[in-house]
Amino acid sequence: MYIYADNAATTKISESAIAAMLTCMKEHNGNPSSLHSDGQDAAEILDKSREEIAQILGCLPSEITFTSGGSESDNQALVSAAVIGARKNKKHIISTTFEHHAVLHTLEHLKTQGYEITLLNVSEKGMVDPELVKESIRDDTCLVSVMYANNEIGTVQDIKKIGAICREKGVLFHTDAVQAAGHIKINVNEENIDMLSLSAHKFNGPKGTGVLFARKGIRLTNVIYGGAQERGKRAGTENLPAIAGMAAALKESYEKIDEVTPHIIKARDKIIEGLEKIPHSVVNGDRNMRLPGNVHMCFEGIEGESLLLLLDNRGIKASSGSACTSGSLDPSHVLLAIGRPHEIAHGSLRLTIDETITDEQVKYIIDNVTEVVTYLRNMSPLWRDKVNGIKPFYI
Amino acid sequence: MYIYADNAATTKISESAIAAMLTCMKEHNGNPSSLHSDGQDAAEILDKSREEIAQILGCLPSEITFTSGGSESDNQALVSAAVIGARKNKKHIISTTFEHHAVLHTLEHLKTQGYEITLLNVSEKGMVDPELVKESIRDDTCLVSVMYANNEIGTVQDIKKIGAICREKGVLFHTDAVQAAGHIKINVNEENIDMLSLSAHKFNGPKGTGVLFARKGIRLTNVIYGGAQERGKRAGTENLPAIAGMAAALKESYEKIDEVTPHIIKARDKIIEGLEKIPHSVVNGDRNMRLPGNVHMCFEGIEGESLLLLLDNRGIKASSGSACTSGSLDPSHVLLAIGRPHEIAHGSLRLTIDETITDEQVKYIIDNVTEVVTYLRNMSPLWRDKVNGIKPFYI
Repeated sequence: MYIYADNAATTKISESAIAAMLTCMKEHNGNPSSLHSDGQDAAEILDKSREEIAQILGCLPSEITFTSGGSESDNQALVSAAVIGARKNKKHIISTTFEHHAVLHTLEHLKTQGYEITLLNVSEKGMVDPELVKESIRDDTCLVSVMYANNEIGTVQDIKKIGAICREKGVLFHTDAVQAAGHIKINVNEENIDMLSLSAHKFNGPKGTGVLFARKGIRLTNVIYGGAQERGKRAGTENLPAIAGMAAALKESYEKIDEVTPHIIKARDKIIEGLEKIPHSVVNGDRNMRLPGNVHMCFEGIEGESLLLLLDNRGIKASSGSACTSGSLDPSHVLLAIGRPHEIAHGSLRLTIDETITDEQVKYIIDNVTEVVTYLRNMSPLWRDKVNGIKPFYI
Repeated sequence: MYIYADNAATTKISESAIAAMLTCMKEHNGNPSSLHSDGQDAAEILDKSREEIAQILGCLPSEITFTSGGSESDNQALVSAAVIGARKNKKHIISTTFEHHAVLHTLEHLKTQGYEITLLNVSEKGMVDPELVKESIRDDTCLVSVMYANNEIGTVQDIKKIGAICREKGVLFHTDAVQAAGHIKINVNEENIDMLSLSAHKFNGPKGTGVLFARKGIRLTNVIYGGAQERGKRAGTENLPAIAGMAAALKESYEKIDEVTPHIIKARDKIIEGLEKIPHSVVNGDRNMRLPGNVHMCFEGIEGESLLLLLDNRGIKASSGSACTSGSLDPSHVLLAIGRPHEIAHGSLRLTIDETITDEQVKYIIDNVTEVVTYLRNMSPLWRDKVNGIKPFYI
């Protein structure tokens, strides 16, 4: 059996997105900035893609900036808000401890530029308390950035409420919606969002493109300087095939979202219920306020990497957490943020499924994860002794 | 007839590049950072692409950083060199007046950060004098950035010599090779280049990807912060299909370069010779030290935009200069840099051809540009009076 359960890392690009890309690459290969008809052809597709995405998000086309992906969008959102803040002598930014590194590392960079950063703790269930956001806003706060859905444990925040608080306080509100877009219906107006980042390859679109939504009136600061593309705010020839592919993928995601979501949630909950039966296991993140396709567990006494490799051999493509930090041996900052001790955080498993999941696959996942966890624990004398209540000789 | 003569703006993506992209999108859709076999499959293609590109440029794979394109590469090169310089209290940067805006605007940004920028004048033929570079280097110079080939007038600099001067003086040397890569054989070691930017869509590769070469030991500064991709120096899930497509396109370009270049140069020179016969016309840029496919002329008394639109109607896709600034009514900074007065700079025409050019097309271009220029001049009473030596009544 083959089960791709790592959709939070990247999704398989859809046929409609590939088709949109190929049409651009084969028939509309002009540079949208060129005056001739080939260029204007390309510019029309660029406009149409921008309109389609704006309509889905509930914003104006002029509020959409195309970037190279979620990380760049996050960088530009934060840097722009910081520059706006500095002009008013407001150099305090609020975010949370469990954001994606595209936010956290940009904030670290801003810290070196004289900004003060407050990272709010999240609950054991991976939830951000809107009241805590409210209490933390100061007179010199220029930005609140809270992720829509966490990339590891999948918890979904009450963005509308947090947005309302920021609006009331007159503070800009950014949300990293990279994991949410295409999987949860988002309306930036109804949810009081001032800036939003999304990435196409997380919803079956192409890699290398994303969106920064920034509400009218928010002056963006360039992350990439150069040509006059994107109203002068993002230099570089527009990646038209990818942008058209992104629009197609987002549209497709929204068209099917009501139909596929209940099926995905049902499969997710079955997997969670099945894996919970493994002794000394724990579900990470709120059970209900989570992404439809996200299962995230910790198994005590397990080394996450070994678990992944053995599951891989059995055809299950999973991850321990974020792919972006997989080169690191440090335990996940997200799991530490929700209070998991180091030794438990090391034994994590993230399964992120999509609508292709079948009952047979659900059973296969439960059976095989259970077997592999048991096998790995049996290999470990320390774990056996612990379970049997025997203290290691060296203690 | 249809003639795409705007290859400097963007090229048509090659079949081999599309094939490489499709293979990635359909068969290797994992995230290269994922531990499972799908991820490792993707990582292998990433490594292979990096090796192929490194081999062509004559550098180490570890000296290649994949970016979203030429603009980002330029930004990161300049910012990185600036940060390295600042550590040694060297905050002087040398570049030229006719660089691409991805360089010029980044330098303007660095100026606001306390860097001193010297922009060297270029000759009337669009050449940078290596001796002038030598004289301009100061004890506090941290970087020299000179473009390999100009994106408007196509002049190609003596990069090897400029590189040697920088090396002798112990100053980092960056070249924006966006227009040169794939069209001129470049070897970063032989040419004493420390940092080099290139963009895939300028040599029949995909849009949205590029390379920053940075010699071993040069510590890059992030332009985009976040995940640990590209040795932590460029965050964001790698755009694998585009990277594989870029490697395929660069390889293809180099394989055919010796064969196609003489043909392109011959066609270029024929077009230049034909268009020179138009009275009151001038060729921009050195006649020999120029890109194989670049024709750049000014026609006195002509509005460039009208010329382009009429040529477009006749099937010739051309431009007046850089596509990146086509939204602007200002005359080209490149033409001003080589000393063209405003009224002549406005009447510019850039034709950038590739190896598909035929003798028939060469003739068609010459005939039609001549006709359209004559037509436009005939429409203008001011021009007729000027040619006839009649002073306008209002003078």
